[in-house]
Amino acid sequence: MNCLEERILKDGIVKEGNVLKVDSFLNHQMDIDLFNEMGKEWKKRFEGANINKILTIEASGIGIACIAAQHFGVPVVFAKKSKSVNLEGEMYVAEVESFTHKCKNQVIVAKKFLNENDRVLIIDDFLANGCALQGLIQIVKSAGATVEGIGIAVEKGFQAGGRIIRNLGFQLESLAIVDDMDSKTGMIKFREEQ
Amino acid sequence: MNCLEERILKDGIVKEGNVLKVDSFLNHQMDIDLFNEMGKEWKKRFEGANINKILTIEASGIGIACIAAQHFGVPVVFAKKSKSVNLEGEMYVAEVESFTHKCKNQVIVAKKFLNENDRVLIIDDFLANGCALQGLIQIVKSAGATVEGIGIAVEKGFQAGGRIIRNLGFQLESLAIVDDMDSKTGMIKFREEQ
Repeated sequence: MNCLEERILKDGIVKEGNVLKVDSFLNHQMDIDLFNEMGKEWKKRFEGANINKILTIEASGIGIACIAAQHFGVPVVFAKKSKSVNLEGEMYVAEVESFTHKCKNQVIVAKKFLNENDRVLIIDDFLANGCALQGLIQIVKSAGATVEGIGIAVEKGFQAGGRIIRNLGFQLESLAIVDDMDSKTGMIKFREEQ
Repeated sequence: MNCLEERILKDGIVKEGNVLKVDSFLNHQMDIDLFNEMGKEWKKRFEGANINKILTIEASGIGIACIAAQHFGVPVVFAKKSKSVNLEGEMYVAEVESFTHKCKNQVIVAKKFLNENDRVLIIDDFLANGCALQGLIQIVKSAGATVEGIGIAVEKGFQAGGRIIRNLGFQLESLAIVDDMDSKTGMIKFREEQ
């Protein structure tokens, strides 16, 4: 069991509707030491991958991606979810649907920050049905860049997102894959590492 | 001239309407080495302050705050701008107006992550009219916690935000204070460090 899984068992809370609250250490309050352990683990799992940029999506992916970036020595680009008056120039745009917020968002990256020479590691905090991730992959593809790998903190293994992404041949490294959970008992069952 | 000011002169772009674009290194693509230098500088400027938590606001404050937090050895809490279905329980809420997005936002922090024992360093990327910052201060006050200091990357010195905050007696440390800029010539004039 790795440090993220241990932390989820200690401080994660299972809520009705398949909600796993990890807001005390992952996506509202953020434990930077834990993020560094996660960054180290991704660096090990993507050993040998020729990564020159990390791509994430606002808001809760940003902290994890920035700390992880220190282990790869690369800059981070975060995709925006809505058009800002400051985000001018040509943009890559993908439409994604949010499971949590129950609405559609546009995922946007300025074209100047992704090009065909980029070898991208995508980082995000959660993977459930995978719509946000699919949007990020679409954007990397639009830029002619390469997805070298995908690092996720918590994957909901009982939803389809992870399986689809692995079926498509991507190296997806989720540090904690929750295969089952129960809001009544608080039970959380992780997939065993291969 | 510090590393952030140098970088602004090198890569910042002045646009009409008093817009300073720093999206190639600060708030879309993010230079993590630069963030570490900024964190070091804030640690020096807040030497002796008894800080146990960093508070920032989504989205572009998060990366800077997380990297800076490593220099203080404290967790980061980021305020959210809109209500999420995952953000249940009691919340501190402040209403703020965004200069960039020309709309009002609610700034929200779950009550369990701020209490009267917290000595908070507020970190954000930009300070212009200061509405977002005022919202964060209001939230710290609502929690009965203490604002130990405020670290801003880029302050627009020709707008009122910074002056108001200093008038109120807060230790506000902006790493680059732009006192004047011109979109026609590209001129950027920084306030000299005291």
